[in-house]
Amino acid sequence: MTAPRFQVDPWLVHEPSVDPAAIPVSETVFSLSNGFLGVRGTLDEAEPCEVHGTFLSGVFEHYPLSYPEAGYGDPSHGQAMVSVPDGTQIQLLVDGASLDIRAAGTQLHQRTLDLRAGVLERQVRWRAPSGTILEVRSARLVSLAERGVLAVRYTVRAVDGRAHVVVRSDLAAVVGRPTVEKGDPRVADALGDPLEVLVRRHTDSGGVLSCRTRQSGIGVAAAVGHEVEGAASMTSDGGGHTVSTTIVAELAEGQSLTVTKVVGYAWARESSAESLLGLASAAVQSAQDRGWDGLADAQREVLDGFWHDADVEVEGDPELQQALRYDLFQVFCAAACISDAPVGAKGLTGLGYDGHTFWDIEGFVLPVLTLLRPEAAARLLHWRSSTLDEARHRAGVLGLQGASFAWRTIDGHECSPYWPASTAAMHVNADIALAFWLYGNVTGEPPDGVGSLPVMVETARLWMSVGRQDHQGTWHLYGMTGPDEYTGVVDDNVFTNLMARGNLRRAAAMVRVAPDRAAQLGVTDEEVESWEAAADSACVPFDETLGVHPMNDNFTGYREWRFEERQDDYPIQEHHHYAKIYRRQVLKQADLVQALWWCRDDFTPEQVARDLDYYEARTVRDSSLSAAVQAVVCAQAGHLDLALRYLRESALVDLRDVQGDTVDGLHMAAAAGSWLALVAGLGGVRLDHEDLEIAPALPAALTRTAYRLRWRGCLLEVETTREGTILTLLDGPGPLPVLVDGERYELRADAPVTVTLRDPEPMLPEPRQPVGREPRT
Amino acid sequence: MTAPRFQVDPWLVHEPSVDPAAIPVSETVFSLSNGFLGVRGTLDEAEPCEVHGTFLSGVFEHYPLSYPEAGYGDPSHGQAMVSVPDGTQIQLLVDGASLDIRAAGTQLHQRTLDLRAGVLERQVRWRAPSGTILEVRSARLVSLAERGVLAVRYTVRAVDGRAHVVVRSDLAAVVGRPTVEKGDPRVADALGDPLEVLVRRHTDSGGVLSCRTRQSGIGVAAAVGHEVEGAASMTSDGGGHTVSTTIVAELAEGQSLTVTKVVGYAWARESSAESLLGLASAAVQSAQDRGWDGLADAQREVLDGFWHDADVEVEGDPELQQALRYDLFQVFCAAACISDAPVGAKGLTGLGYDGHTFWDIEGFVLPVLTLLRPEAAARLLHWRSSTLDEARHRAGVLGLQGASFAWRTIDGHECSPYWPASTAAMHVNADIALAFWLYGNVTGEPPDGVGSLPVMVETARLWMSVGRQDHQGTWHLYGMTGPDEYTGVVDDNVFTNLMARGNLRRAAAMVRVAPDRAAQLGVTDEEVESWEAAADSACVPFDETLGVHPMNDNFTGYREWRFEERQDDYPIQEHHHYAKIYRRQVLKQADLVQALWWCRDDFTPEQVARDLDYYEARTVRDSSLSAAVQAVVCAQAGHLDLALRYLRESALVDLRDVQGDTVDGLHMAAAAGSWLALVAGLGGVRLDHEDLEIAPALPAALTRTAYRLRWRGCLLEVETTREGTILTLLDGPGPLPVLVDGERYELRADAPVTVTLRDPEPMLPEPRQPVGREPRT
Repeated sequence: MTAPRFQVDPWLVHEPSVDPAAIPVSETVFSLSNGFLGVRGTLDEAEPCEVHGTFLSGVFEHYPLSYPEAGYGDPSHGQAMVSVPDGTQIQLLVDGASLDIRAAGTQLHQRTLDLRAGVLERQVRWRAPSGTILEVRSARLVSLAERGVLAVRYTVRAVDGRAHVVVRSDLAAVVGRPTVEKGDPRVADALGDPLEVLVRRHTDSGGVLSCRTRQSGIGVAAAVGHEVEGAASMTSDGGGHTVSTTIVAELAEGQSLTVTKVVGYAWARESSAESLLGLASAAVQSAQDRGWDGLADAQREVLDGFWHDADVEVEGDPELQQALRYDLFQVFCAAACISDAPVGAKGLTGLGYDGHTFWDIEGFVLPVLTLLRPEAAARLLHWRSSTLDEARHRAGVLGLQGASFAWRTIDGHECSPYWPASTAAMHVNADIALAFWLYGNVTGEPPDGVGSLPVMVETARLWMSVGRQDHQGTWHLYGMTGPDEYTGVVDDNVFTNLMARGNLRRAAAMVRVAPDRAAQLGVTDEEVESWEAAADSACVPFDETLGVHPMNDNFTGYREWRFEERQDDYPIQEHHHYAKIYRRQVLKQADLVQALWWCRDDFTPEQVARDLDYYEARTVRDSSLSAAVQAVVCAQAGHLDLALRYLRESALVDLRDVQGDTVDGLHMAAAAGSWLALVAGLGGVRLDHEDLEIAPALPAALTRTAYRLRWRGCLLEVETTREGTILTLLDGPGPLPVLVDGERYELRADAPVTVTLRDPEPMLPEPRQPVGREPRT
Repeated sequence: MTAPRFQVDPWLVHEPSVDPAAIPVSETVFSLSNGFLGVRGTLDEAEPCEVHGTFLSGVFEHYPLSYPEAGYGDPSHGQAMVSVPDGTQIQLLVDGASLDIRAAGTQLHQRTLDLRAGVLERQVRWRAPSGTILEVRSARLVSLAERGVLAVRYTVRAVDGRAHVVVRSDLAAVVGRPTVEKGDPRVADALGDPLEVLVRRHTDSGGVLSCRTRQSGIGVAAAVGHEVEGAASMTSDGGGHTVSTTIVAELAEGQSLTVTKVVGYAWARESSAESLLGLASAAVQSAQDRGWDGLADAQREVLDGFWHDADVEVEGDPELQQALRYDLFQVFCAAACISDAPVGAKGLTGLGYDGHTFWDIEGFVLPVLTLLRPEAAARLLHWRSSTLDEARHRAGVLGLQGASFAWRTIDGHECSPYWPASTAAMHVNADIALAFWLYGNVTGEPPDGVGSLPVMVETARLWMSVGRQDHQGTWHLYGMTGPDEYTGVVDDNVFTNLMARGNLRRAAAMVRVAPDRAAQLGVTDEEVESWEAAADSACVPFDETLGVHPMNDNFTGYREWRFEERQDDYPIQEHHHYAKIYRRQVLKQADLVQALWWCRDDFTPEQVARDLDYYEARTVRDSSLSAAVQAVVCAQAGHLDLALRYLRESALVDLRDVQGDTVDGLHMAAAAGSWLALVAGLGGVRLDHEDLEIAPALPAALTRTAYRLRWRGCLLEVETTREGTILTLLDGPGPLPVLVDGERYELRADAPVTVTLRDPEPMLPEPRQPVGREPRT
C-alpha cells in the first residue's frame, strides 16, 4: 500500500493532492465516526474506491466457522461487521461526462479533515471533456450531536463556461464484500450479500431502505433526503438495493448548484421494518431542521467541549503534535455516541478483524476514555458487563467457574476459532476487570453504575478454577497465552499470573467494601480469603542466572531467534510456523514488559531496567499494540529518547501506515496507546493507586508537553517544560491530592503547582532492538 | 452401534445369525484385505449396508482444508482414501422378489471367517415370497497370492420347489461418501463423487471400468469376469459408474446355479487408462486360470506359511485365543502385499481417519511385522523412507533441520490441520527412527536395504534443531505434545525427550559403523559428538515430593481431574475443551507409561512401579492404543492379572467393538498391540538390546502361552506353562543367544531350552484406575 502524504498542521489533516494508489489508506484515515455510525473516507464518486463502508456499531452478520479438525467448544459461528446502506456516493456528470479523478482533467484535488470542526472537506477543480472548468466542493460529517446522521454538502460551480450538470446521489446497500479470503465458500455466501432489502420507497427528494441481515436477523433502516440550492430539478428512483436521487441543473458561468444530502440510520435486533424506518426518517428530519450550518455548528460545539477537556500539546515535534491530536480525535469519535455495542479494534473505519472488539479496547482505549470522557467509558463498560451471562456460559463450556469473556466478539459471544491465541489467552478477563476497577478508581464513582462488582467477582472465580497451588504452596496458571502472540500455551506467564493476582486482590477489596451486594452474588468470607491466599502465592518465575524474569516458565531456556538471518521474515507469523515460534525467544509484542507497566508494583526499578533490556532485544513489534507499551516502560526506565521514538511510532501508525494495513481500518488501541505513551509514559501518570501520581519527564527533542485529564471529577492540566511542571486545576472541586515524583501536593483552583523537572537516571544503557526493528518513523 | 455376537472358536469367527443393527460393525470385522486391496465385509446384496468400501492402498483424493484462522505452514489439502469400484455386490431375485435379510423369509443366516482359509463364507436359507426355499452360499476372498484379485463364489440352490432365478452382479464406482461431516461444502464436493469414469466397456460375462480421481489424478482400473456353472444365460450392460452382469436360470427343485465372480484391480499415479485396464484384465484372467479352487488353495498355502511362522496360543481363555489370532490375521493381511503405500490406521477396512497412517503403525504394527513377516516390514519401512524428501521439505517449512515426517498422511505429505496434536507431536520422528533401528537389530540386516541411515541421520538433525541446552547444560525440548492427546504443547515431555535421546544415540552408533555412507550425508564427527552430548544431557524431570516422573514439566502440579463427577464425560475430548484438558492430570492414553516400555533402560524398577501406579490412576483410555501399552508395563511391574485384563481389552477391541467405532474400520495398532502385550508384556520380550531377551510370566487365569518369532533369521517358539518356558529353535542357523530372565542361553536346533517360571514380585499393590475406566471386557 502507498501511504498518502499529509501536510503537517496542528489541527488539520490536509491532503494536498490525490494519489490513486494511496486511496486505500486515505479512505481509512479520512473515516468519520461517532461510535454509532461510521463512514470510510471514500471519495464522493463511487470509483476509485478500495472499500465502500458505512457501519453501525453492533450490526453484524453471522457466518459458519468450519474446522478441518474441530474441538469441543470451538465457536460454530463467526460474526462480521457488515456495511449498511452507504449514503456517501455522489456522482457528478457534466455535459454527459462523469468526474473521475483517474481520468485527465483533474487540476486540483485536496482534502482536509479539520479536527476541531469534525468535517471532511474536499475541493476539486476539474476541466470537463466539454472544456468547462468546474469547481466541486464537498463537506461531509458524521454528526456528533445526532448519532444517526451523516450529512454531505456538495457544491458544483461552473468556473469557466457553462455546463449541464447532473448530480446523482445514491443510498445503496453494499453487495459483494471486497475481501473474503476465508476458504469456506459459505463464508463468502454469508458475507457477500448480507442484507435482505425489505422495504424500498422513494419520493422526489430521497427515499428509504429497510433491510435485515439474513442470518443474524438485525434490522437496519436508512433514509435519505436532499435539499437543493440553485435552480435545478430533482427526482428519485429506486431499484434493487439502491435509492438514487438525480438533480439536474443548467449552470451558466459562475453559477453553482449546492446539494445538501442527509442520511439517517437506525437499527435494532427486534423491531419492525416500519418502526425502524420511522426512526431513520426522523433522524433526517431532525438534521434537515438543523440544516447544514446547524449540524456543523453542533459538531464544532461538541468538539470544542472535547478539546477543552482533552487537548494535548507537544512542542518540538509538529508531526507528533498532529498525530496525537488526530489519534485522540479518532478515539473520541469511536466512542462518542456508542451504546449497547463495543468499540471494535478498528472502530467503524474498516473491516479489519471483522469489526470485533478485543482485550486491547479495555486495555488501552478505556483508560483514555476514563480519563477524558468518563461517560463514554461508562457506556463501554456497561456494554461489557451486559455480556456477563454469555461469559458465564462460556466459562461453563470451558468447564470453569465464574465468567470467561470473549476474546473477540461483537455481541459478546466468543468468535475466535483458534484457541491457543484466544481461549488460552485468559488474561483478557483480568484486563477487563482492571478496566472496571480503574474506572472506579479514577472517577471515584461507586461500582454499581457500570456493573463492576459482578465482573470482578466472576473473573476472580474464573482464576480460582484455573489456577492450582502446588505442594510448596505456590499458585500456578498453566497453559496460558499472554499478550505476546508469538509465545503460546505456556505455564506461568508472568503477565497473566500478575494480572490474575491483581484481579483477585481487587475483587477481594471490592467485596469487602460492599459485603451486602457481594453476598447477593454468593460470595463468602472463605471465598474471599481463598482469593487473597492464591494472589499472595502466585508464581513469578525468575531466572537467577540471567537476573531477569522469564516471561513464562522456561522462556529464557528457549532457542534464540536469529534476527540477523531473518530480516525479510516480517511479520514473522507469515513466515514461520507457530510450532516453532511459540518456543523461541522472539516476541511479537510486549508481554513481560507490559507487566512492568500494568503490574508495576510487582517489580523493583532494577528489575524493570534489566527486564526491559532483555525483552527489547527480542521484541519485533509485528503488533501495533506494542510500541506504546514499550514507550511507557522505556520512560519508566529513564530512556526518554527511546520512549519518544516509540511514542512516535505508535502515534503515526495510521497517518504513516506504519504496519501496512491501515487500509483495513484505524488501529484504535495504538491511537489510544499513543496518548498513554505520552501521559503514562513521559508524564509518568499512574492510575492504579489511591491518589493520582505523576512523574514528568521531557525527552531532549521536546521543549514542552501539556495534557489534560479528569480525576475524581476534577479537570487537571499538566504542562511540562525544561523549567518544570505546572499542574493546574481547571475545573472541579479541589483540593485534589497529587503525588509528583513521589511528593504529595494538594491542587486547588487558581493555585497551580509548579514542580522542578527531574533528571532521568537510567540504570542501564539504552536498550537495543533486533536489527531492523528499531522504532519506525 | 450394536456389536455382533460371534461364536468363540480358535480359528473361526462365526456369526450364527444376522442382526441388522450389528451390520455396521460386522462389515468391518469381516473385512478382507491383502494390503494392496481391501473390501469391507458387506453382505452380497447392496442393502442393508453401512458403508460399501473397496480400497486400494495408496489411492486417495485431495480435498481442500480451509481454516477459519489459518497459520503459516498449515497444510492446504487433506487426503482421503476413497472407495474404488466395488465388486462385491450381487443381487438375487427369485420369481421377481429380491433377497433382503430385513424382509421376512430369512430362515438361516450365518457367516464364517476362517482364519486359516482366508475366506469369508456365508450361508443363507431363504423362503422366497413365491414359497420356494432357497439356499444361498457365497464365499469371498481377497487373494493373498494375486494382489489385485477379489473373488466370489455364489451358489443358489432351490431346496424346495422350483425357482426362476436372476443373479445381478455389479462392478460399481461408489458415489456419495457415507459420512462427510466436515463443514466445508467443498469437502463433500471433492469426496462425494471422487472418481471420473474414463472408460466403461462390457462383454457378456463382465466388463471393465477405468477411472481417475478428479483432483489427485490417480488412475484406477477394475475388470470383472463371471463364470457360471449350471444352465443359465448371461449378459452384461453398463451405464454411468456401473457394469452389471445378469445371469438368469430356471432351477428345478434341488438344482443349483453357481457363479464365480472375479474382479481385478490396478492403479497408478501415471499410466494410461488402457494400460491400467490391461493390468486389471490380466488379473482377472490369471485368477480365472487358477479357478476358485486354485485361488482358495493358494490362499490357504499363504496362510499356512504365516501361521507356521506366527501362530500364537493361549490356554485358559478361549475368547482371547480367538481374538489374538483374529488380530494377527488382520495385521498380516493389512501388510501382506503392500508396496509403495503405508498401512493406514484402519488398514483397508474402513474410512476412519481418512485412510491415513500415523505413528502407531511404526510403533505397534512394524515391530510385529519385523518379528513375524520381516519382508512386509521392509516394504513398509521402504515406503516411509521414500517420503524422506517430503519430510525434509516439511522440516524446512517448520524452519528446522533434517526431516520431519508427516503426522498423518497417505502419500507422505502432512495432512493434519490441527498442529498442537500433530506438528507439535514430533515424537513421530523418533518413533519412525526406532522402527527402522529395531528392524535392523531384529533381522540383523544391514541398514541400506530399507534406507535406515538417512532416516536416522535426518531425524537426529531434526532433534538437534528443536532442542536447546540451558545454562546448566541440560538439553530441553519445549512445546512438544507427547503420545497423550489430552496433554499438549508442553515442555520436556519425558517420552519425547527420551525417544529423542534414543534417536540421537542410535543415529550416532549407526553412523560410527558406516562412516563412508554417513559422510555422503554430510555427517561430520563434530555433528555426531553433538548428538551424543545432547542425548547425554537430555532433561528428565522428576518430582521429588511425589517420587514420580511428571510426564512433562509441571504435570504433577496440574489440577486433578474429578473422575467421580464426570463418569458420563467419555470420550473426554467430546465433552471438554482442550484449553482445559491440556493442563489437567487426565490422560487419554499412556504417555510416560509408554516411555517405561520403549525407553525401559532409562528407568529403575522402582520408578517403573511408582510411575505406573501414578499414571494408572489418571489414564482413561479414550484411545485404543493405550491398553496394550498398559498391559506391557503392568507385566513389567509384575501385575500379571491386570496385564491380562488390558491384553484382553486390546485384543477384543474390534470383535467386541470396545471403542464403539469399529464401524469406521479395524484398530490396526491395537490389533498389533495385543500381540505385543502378550509377547513383550507377559513374555517379557525385548528387541532393543543386542541379544534377544525374554522374561516369561503367566497370569493366574492362563495355563499356557506359546508364540513364535523370528530373530536374525531364526524362527523361535516360546512356550510357557506353570512348569516353565520351553524355547525351541524351529528354523534357521543356530546357535541363537537368548537371555531369559537375564540368564544367557544358546539355542540350537533340536535342543530346546527349558527355564523355570519366575514368580513376579510386584513392588506395589495392583494399581487402580479412574472409576469406571478399569480394563473393559
